[in-house]
Amino acid sequence: MANDYKTSKGQVFDRDTFESWNKRKNFYWQSFEPYGATKGLFDYGIAEPLEYEILNIWRDHFVRSEKMISLKTSMLTPYKVLKTSGHVDKFADFMCKDPKSGEILRTDHLIKDVIETRLKGDREAREDFANIIKKHDIRNPTTGNEVEPPVPVNLMFQTEIGASGKEPAFLRPETAQAQFLAFPKLVEITGGRLPFASACIGYSFRNELSPRSGLLRVREFLMAEIEHFVDPEGGKKHPKFSRVRDIKLPLLARDVQQAGGSTSTEMTVGEAVEKKVIDNETLGYFLVRIMQFMQKIGIDMSKLRFRQHMENEMAHYAADCWDCELLNSYGWTECVGCADRSAFDLSVHQKATGVNLQIQETLPAPIKSTEWVAQLNKKNSGPRFKKEVGKVQSALDSLSQELREKLSITLKDEGKVEVDVPEMGKVELGNDLVKFEQETTTRTTREFIPNVIEPSFGIGRILYSLLEHVWWTREGDAARAVMSFKPSVAPTKVLVVPLQKDSRLTPTVQALEERLDEEAISYELDQSGVSIGKRYSRNDEAGIPFGITVDYESLEDNSFTLRDRDTTKQVRASLDDIVDAIHKMIKGKESWADVQKRLPVVEAKEEDK
Amino acid sequence: MANDYKTSKGQVFDRDTFESWNKRKNFYWQSFEPYGATKGLFDYGIAEPLEYEILNIWRDHFVRSEKMISLKTSMLTPYKVLKTSGHVDKFADFMCKDPKSGEILRTDHLIKDVIETRLKGDREAREDFANIIKKHDIRNPTTGNEVEPPVPVNLMFQTEIGASGKEPAFLRPETAQAQFLAFPKLVEITGGRLPFASACIGYSFRNELSPRSGLLRVREFLMAEIEHFVDPEGGKKHPKFSRVRDIKLPLLARDVQQAGGSTSTEMTVGEAVEKKVIDNETLGYFLVRIMQFMQKIGIDMSKLRFRQHMENEMAHYAADCWDCELLNSYGWTECVGCADRSAFDLSVHQKATGVNLQIQETLPAPIKSTEWVAQLNKKNSGPRFKKEVGKVQSALDSLSQELREKLSITLKDEGKVEVDVPEMGKVELGNDLVKFEQETTTRTTREFIPNVIEPSFGIGRILYSLLEHVWWTREGDAARAVMSFKPSVAPTKVLVVPLQKDSRLTPTVQALEERLDEEAISYELDQSGVSIGKRYSRNDEAGIPFGITVDYESLEDNSFTLRDRDTTKQVRASLDDIVDAIHKMIKGKESWADVQKRLPVVEAKEEDK
Repeated sequence: MANDYKTSKGQVFDRDTFESWNKRKNFYWQSFEPYGATKGLFDYGIAEPLEYEILNIWRDHFVRSEKMISLKTSMLTPYKVLKTSGHVDKFADFMCKDPKSGEILRTDHLIKDVIETRLKGDREAREDFANIIKKHDIRNPTTGNEVEPPVPVNLMFQTEIGASGKEPAFLRPETAQAQFLAFPKLVEITGGRLPFASACIGYSFRNELSPRSGLLRVREFLMAEIEHFVDPEGGKKHPKFSRVRDIKLPLLARDVQQAGGSTSTEMTVGEAVEKKVIDNETLGYFLVRIMQFMQKIGIDMSKLRFRQHMENEMAHYAADCWDCELLNSYGWTECVGCADRSAFDLSVHQKATGVNLQIQETLPAPIKSTEWVAQLNKKNSGPRFKKEVGKVQSALDSLSQELREKLSITLKDEGKVEVDVPEMGKVELGNDLVKFEQETTTRTTREFIPNVIEPSFGIGRILYSLLEHVWWTREGDAARAVMSFKPSVAPTKVLVVPLQKDSRLTPTVQALEERLDEEAISYELDQSGVSIGKRYSRNDEAGIPFGITVDYESLEDNSFTLRDRDTTKQVRASLDDIVDAIHKMIKGKESWADVQKRLPVVEAKEEDK
Repeated sequence: MANDYKTSKGQVFDRDTFESWNKRKNFYWQSFEPYGATKGLFDYGIAEPLEYEILNIWRDHFVRSEKMISLKTSMLTPYKVLKTSGHVDKFADFMCKDPKSGEILRTDHLIKDVIETRLKGDREAREDFANIIKKHDIRNPTTGNEVEPPVPVNLMFQTEIGASGKEPAFLRPETAQAQFLAFPKLVEITGGRLPFASACIGYSFRNELSPRSGLLRVREFLMAEIEHFVDPEGGKKHPKFSRVRDIKLPLLARDVQQAGGSTSTEMTVGEAVEKKVIDNETLGYFLVRIMQFMQKIGIDMSKLRFRQHMENEMAHYAADCWDCELLNSYGWTECVGCADRSAFDLSVHQKATGVNLQIQETLPAPIKSTEWVAQLNKKNSGPRFKKEVGKVQSALDSLSQELREKLSITLKDEGKVEVDVPEMGKVELGNDLVKFEQETTTRTTREFIPNVIEPSFGIGRILYSLLEHVWWTREGDAARAVMSFKPSVAPTKVLVVPLQKDSRLTPTVQALEERLDEEAISYELDQSGVSIGKRYSRNDEAGIPFGITVDYESLEDNSFTLRDRDTTKQVRASLDDIVDAIHKMIKGKESWADVQKRLPVVEAKEEDK
């Protein structure tokens, strides 16, 4: 897979070259390097402002546009919460120990590495790990030793809250649980009118046994999770579905995968929901919104697909799940999970805590219902049955409606009935002891636990895939990388380049800097002595979309050249026009092509090195 | 203290009323409430978008404006890092155990609660805890039991990285350490030209023994920390100091506190640095920038002061420290620490890891120096001293310059010298074995470990203080709260209020909503049936700065009334004018007073309830 992966320009992607670019430009690195670095933990350098821009777009696209309630919740999570949710028992990977070297090996990686079998998407296979290892005589490839039988290891980081050590706690494996426990607050804030959604951008933790694949599998990661609460009745419709109905999605459905297929098919979301490829409107709506978000941040749409989970692949809480997968040099990578968690979580928390996590809905019209009630005569049944009166009433309560009706006729006809009472056998009840009556009740409300559709974004994986998607090299110079970030997500927007080291240029450069500061446009100043061509090369590697050159003409008429990173084309205009063009391109209201049409293009001599 | 605290309108602040406001409006709450809530952990509801706006301003004010390098670093931190930094040994509070009830009591709280003595700012007193408890017969006030002697308890949350349990780790107590360990990257990114700064917005953890005071003392908290690296030579000047020299700061210096004073004095930062009240320009510059940030987010400037730490109050790494304290109903609260950490951290990490954490600076002019060198003759000294040749050379290396010069004369005069060699006694060296020569070396670079000035912001404490600062109640109705957030930080910017429940208004309301969406202005729609006055009351409690009323005139001419939360005044104008005014007020380019001057004011009938 890695060998097939190509850049957006169709160039073969070489991961070593990519990694040496990162080493040069310091987008991210392993944490605590001076102490030998810690696996699965990463620091972000230039990737930090990039992530900030991605999150800004996410907030605008989801939280503001969809009127979600943004929450911040605790990472430290008490034991009892994650016991109820199932994570204490089920959030685990299998590991094998090399008993001689003491090395800990993740069982699925071990097997995959050794017999080159792809187990992805087959959680059930875990049960067979021990057999597979025995049958194929799988050993630790580093030492050649036989390994101990696989055992499950919980992947949550454990700690203790308070000094007494009495309250064990975990670092959360997902932000979702705290959002579910905030459900009563969400009902207060929204007035309980479904659908509504909460959203949380926050860190989760997973104590990976053997972290690998760089930013793709880490121990501490940023998630952006949405919990969309919806009425389980009425087909989980979405009020804005009509707006997206005709948008096409690249879908890889479960049945296609079962038949051995791995190619996605384009289909409008309307058709997909109609044909039940996608279960419901709400799920479909979010798949479209996820795709639109990816497009906004600059993901290559030819490297995106939605893959449905296989039945045996889903997490313990999920009823259905579609992953948004992005293609990068490691293969198709799950970057967003869009799961239907049904009523699982709210139900188990309600049961464990006794707190009402239901929605109470006023019915459009009251519903009347008539029921047969079987009731002991209190005055007479007490002396007759003494301590056993409760057993008799329970037996009556457990009678079906049909039987109650039948017994009422028998009682009327014969003056007595016989009822089976557990531990007491057949008990005879006369008119003095029991009566059967029809009662009519009127319900004006309906109480139910809502279902949850959960789009859950792995921000680090999206960011890494984006880095690969925008990375390419200039023709004829494989070492000269270009990062084609969209202006809206680029970590820095402008490079200011004085033509030469000349103090006559300084006042104009300073005035330009002040203007950019006023406009809150982030910029860097490169006044190193190297050639303009070299400075722009370094700029392109950092992914800064625009360059402003300060030359001797600038001193005279306050005009500047504005350079586009991707095309290396330049226009020349007044400072006001240039600032205006930059703002418009950052906001996505204009493209470089638009700007090139309305502002005069100049020869880009500085590209000749 | 709490009783003296007043709102910005001079009203007595009643914390119960404030807390019932929060319960109604769901700004924040204790985490995991359905499970009985966990002390010291909080979820943010409406406070989340508020925090987001505060952080946006922080980023713009510090990171972008000051060209800092924004980092994201790991929370999970290996043992060895925090052992070196001193946190494993010194990041502790003292606790006492009630041996009968098992209750854990924080010693300083216990003493303070019982003898009403203010120990704040007196860390040395900790040593005397045991004596104070004995002398004053301090018991657990809840049970009346004698308590066990105080013992220190480390406040870091401990966990383990990996499955083998071989790598103990902590949740970081500050973001600073990871920033120091990223120092080699910062040098690469900046080219090593001092001063430069990194910044990190991230969570830190503190396993409080007995969390109290709501958001002020919590176990998981967001910090925004800056590490500004500066040359220790030349008085730690700051290049932008001249821009702030005449700005006045409210200062409470160490000597004033020592003399028993607790009132701050206004002084320009220029004068304060000159008079050495503030040690240096860089520290002074950051105090001003901190104050300006507080002003931008809407902190009441009459409730802000800078207090210098007492000598015995500083953290183990600090050489000097000023706190920005905000006054709230709990008293003066440390919200930003601005510490001079000198070269402490980089030095200990360099020593522990052997990694070079120095700056190499090219000297303006090379520096020549001449030294006496004492060197054994290799050919002859080997056979003579065999294995002990090293000892002899070491003894020569440890001779002072003066002694070497003297010996060179003796050797010339007498043909031999005597040298004391440890473990060997006096050793005679002739011309065949040793020579003394003058060597001249030229240094072109200077290597040094930079000093660090660290402004460290506790975002939760700032946010809580801000909530109290903007909270007041309408005259004549103490239950009717108003949250006077600045438009730039308000969690939601606009409330849309249709005059009545009338379907004729719907298309205009929808068109208005679409326009606000297009403009990315966050809004809420209140179409509940209650009176406009009541709806605006609820709005004021949520702190939404602007209301747009849709009435029957709007249907005809697309004009709307725009209402100001604080004054309840209204203007009427076209949609374009209203949107334009809102944008300008959010950006701080216009105030409501400005808008009221240029757009026609209308009678605000809806305020009469």
